[in-house]
Amino acid sequence: MLDLSLPSGLRDLLPDHSAHLAELTARLHQVFSSFGYRRLLLPTLERLEVVERGLSPGALQGVLKFVEPGSGEVVAIRPDITPQIARLYAARPDALPAPSRLCYDGPVLRAREARAGRPREVYQAGVELLGAGGASADAEALLLLWRSLERVGLSHAVVEVGHARFAHEVIAAAGLAPRARAEAEGALARKDEAALARLAGRGRGSARARRALPLLATLYGEGALDRARALARGVPGATAALAEVVEALRLVRRRGLQKVAVDLGETRGLGYYTGVTFAGYAPGAGSAVASGGRYDRLLERFGRPGPAIGFAVDLEFATQALERSARGRARRG
Amino acid sequence: MLDLSLPSGLRDLLPDHSAHLAELTARLHQVFSSFGYRRLLLPTLERLEVVERGLSPGALQGVLKFVEPGSGEVVAIRPDITPQIARLYAARPDALPAPSRLCYDGPVLRAREARAGRPREVYQAGVELLGAGGASADAEALLLLWRSLERVGLSHAVVEVGHARFAHEVIAAAGLAPRARAEAEGALARKDEAALARLAGRGRGSARARRALPLLATLYGEGALDRARALARGVPGATAALAEVVEALRLVRRRGLQKVAVDLGETRGLGYYTGVTFAGYAPGAGSAVASGGRYDRLLERFGRPGPAIGFAVDLEFATQALERSARGRARRG
Repeated sequence: MLDLSLPSGLRDLLPDHSAHLAELTARLHQVFSSFGYRRLLLPTLERLEVVERGLSPGALQGVLKFVEPGSGEVVAIRPDITPQIARLYAARPDALPAPSRLCYDGPVLRAREARAGRPREVYQAGVELLGAGGASADAEALLLLWRSLERVGLSHAVVEVGHARFAHEVIAAAGLAPRARAEAEGALARKDEAALARLAGRGRGSARARRALPLLATLYGEGALDRARALARGVPGATAALAEVVEALRLVRRRGLQKVAVDLGETRGLGYYTGVTFAGYAPGAGSAVASGGRYDRLLERFGRPGPAIGFAVDLEFATQALERSARGRARRG
Repeated sequence: MLDLSLPSGLRDLLPDHSAHLAELTARLHQVFSSFGYRRLLLPTLERLEVVERGLSPGALQGVLKFVEPGSGEVVAIRPDITPQIARLYAARPDALPAPSRLCYDGPVLRAREARAGRPREVYQAGVELLGAGGASADAEALLLLWRSLERVGLSHAVVEVGHARFAHEVIAAAGLAPRARAEAEGALARKDEAALARLAGRGRGSARARRALPLLATLYGEGALDRARALARGVPGATAALAEVVEALRLVRRRGLQKVAVDLGETRGLGYYTGVTFAGYAPGAGSAVASGGRYDRLLERFGRPGPAIGFAVDLEFATQALERSARGRARRG
């Protein structure tokens, strides 16, 4: 009797769910296209050396790699599409002049579940704006994310803006030892103010930065920007990061987008973000339905330096959120 | 300096080409959906045992397989989507009652190029009609193939109908030794009448079947069905196969599809076809833009016996044909 199971951690998507996901993908591409983003189809495999160049050492553990029997090359199933696009952008300046607006959809695969019960194969649709820096590019990406969520029926989603460097700058200024620094990042991810206060006591940095450390866990919700401004005083890197967030928010508000939240205590990371970051959250989804940010140091790793920003929608979490809200309407209706 | 090349035999698709391919995929799904076919999303990896069950031994050499580091399972990157659907259909009779009309799109990957210059990663969109046999299902699939090509702008394509068993039955009746049989299939693929005549001389079967053997190379074009009928006389298996083709053609003609060609000298093969087969050819494409057929013995290998038929459109060859015909129009216009 043949065992019909799949490799562990993989799943089939049955017809209704697949149809929802495909419809959502098609709508996202409509929005991407209306903003001038052009689609790319990229291969399932990359040479491992290229994948390594695009990821932090921690993320590399999750890469599914093997030796190709014919050529002996070490290859990887793509764990992320952004570095593929960075590689192509660097290889084909003739076809992809700066700035390039590019979009994609497809699965990415990891060696094992990031957390128990999370899928290993993740369907994404996303955009990259390559060779364009500064607040206007930040605002374009943020507005495109918002319009994308709106177009697929997730206008009740919350878009949260943060910055890859803000919390790191404060942690660095507090003068923690490397191990305490890692603990602080963990505590911040849990919004554990008490743990941060304990760690601050072990810091050797400025008194101001050490006092600021536990408050990083409070930089969301009403008044978060004002609290962040006060807290960043005396930490120039944090002040500069905050200014980038404020300017991007000013530009998107001018273009009609009011509903943006702030969380400056985020230390999320594929490891390549360098500036403004953002994430979309919707009730009913197991995790963020979209996330992204500015990554101004990734392209240079592939030999064509330049600023860049992008985001990806997690098609399954977004589909979950839509199916949940449809069931909610059905119950109420 | 980082080498930006891809693993050998893989390619990126640049924006214009990707957009054409995506547009074509979307239109195909519109037609599939209008015929009641429901989309499935299937994983990139399968357990090797499942892939082996779905392919002939020859095709297995082309499968890209490796051991998963976490679980030690031997897995394969899917080389074909039809066996995945057969596996799912067998595993989930609750979700997929017979008959099931299912469709898909996505890349499949081979260990190396089937022929020099052919891509290893092939983008397909296709349908499977599972648990439905007989001429009416054959006609449905054939009509759907035709409407699909028409919808994407390939109404000038030629759809050729054949049968997986016809030529094999004649070759078997000619009584060739196994090695000569393989040579005859090769000669037939080249339409090499002279080589078939030489091989017929070495046969130990009926004189009628041996006389018929070289004529297999002529069973296409005007009058092919009449020649096939004469040639199949005295070979009951071939006569039965021919009757299936004739009945399917009668049904599609009744539904308005006149432009169907016949080639009964086809011995194409993923190895699982058992009945009517078909292929679409368009000028400008390097090979068939679509192919498929009846495979009534595949589902039982996964434990849920039943008839089945399906086809896949090769999205890149179809895109090539469309781009070629657009350039032709531009030159003439």
